[in-house]
Amino acid sequence: MSLSMYQASIPVLIRGINNLSAILAKAAAHADEKQIAHEVFLNARLAPDMFALTRQVQSVSDIAKGCGARLAGVEVPSFADTETTFAELQERLAKTVTFLESLSPAQIDGSEEKAVVLTFPSREFRFTGQTYLLGFVLPNFYFHLTTAYDILRHNGVPLGKPDYLGAS
Amino acid sequence: MSLSMYQASIPVLIRGINNLSAILAKAAAHADEKQIAHEVFLNARLAPDMFALTRQVQSVSDIAKGCGARLAGVEVPSFADTETTFAELQERLAKTVTFLESLSPAQIDGSEEKAVVLTFPSREFRFTGQTYLLGFVLPNFYFHLTTAYDILRHNGVPLGKPDYLGAS
Repeated sequence: MSLSMYQASIPVLIRGINNLSAILAKAAAHADEKQIAHEVFLNARLAPDMFALTRQVQSVSDIAKGCGARLAGVEVPSFADTETTFAELQERLAKTVTFLESLSPAQIDGSEEKAVVLTFPSREFRFTGQTYLLGFVLPNFYFHLTTAYDILRHNGVPLGKPDYLGAS
Repeated sequence: MSLSMYQASIPVLIRGINNLSAILAKAAAHADEKQIAHEVFLNARLAPDMFALTRQVQSVSDIAKGCGARLAGVEVPSFADTETTFAELQERLAKTVTFLESLSPAQIDGSEEKAVVLTFPSREFRFTGQTYLLGFVLPNFYFHLTTAYDILRHNGVPLGKPDYLGAS
């Protein structure tokens, strides 16, 4: 079967989110075991002008739901970015997976040439579905997923590459 | 044009490597400006049991050349992992790009179902070309690229997301 836009996006994003969910569960358990306030991890960042863990997790969700919605041509679900606990971040990730699972291959496949325009305060990005997925979604998705992992590793949470990659 | 194994791999990897090359050039320039020994950055790591910057860069190269070679069915080029300077890392990245550029779409396309077996001391991974690219190569490639960026950001190198994403 040849590579499809659906296969290259939705199952990949769901898997990454599920891996992040398991990583966050280990972080919360480690904090409890070491009697570290959860906020210490949730507010941790690698540089003063980088996002803290909570915002990294929200970004993973944003990129994933934006990708699914834009490739399928449906409205991007809006989540309020009000999470302040591990439980709320888990709920955010679960809602994101539920949305991605609602999208069928028929909605995503054939979106290679679909016009995708992202407007940010400082910059407008104009993509095709394919350049959006390969040049924006996947690099950004893995950027925030990896940085969440790196923040937790830097703070001593016992994690390894298999936690990031998930089951093969 | 429908998504192809070539489009989803070789140009994506080349672009990421070129972005990493530019990031490393900025890091070397910043070190010189601040009179920081290059080794401080080259040996920096986010946790005692994570790879230092040099090994992160070598890993980006390894994953990229391994991907190109295995999907094309040619021998994986062997590089000695002896780099100790920014100049040597740049040379390693340039050699990797040269190798990737030597591979044609005709060599890579249609590799979705090709058997790919990776053997590590602790684990064997059995993939198809498609699961190798989507579930191993891309997550690992972006993991090491992002962690290289994160190490440098954590050490105060003035970088931003556009350095990571590159030109659109």
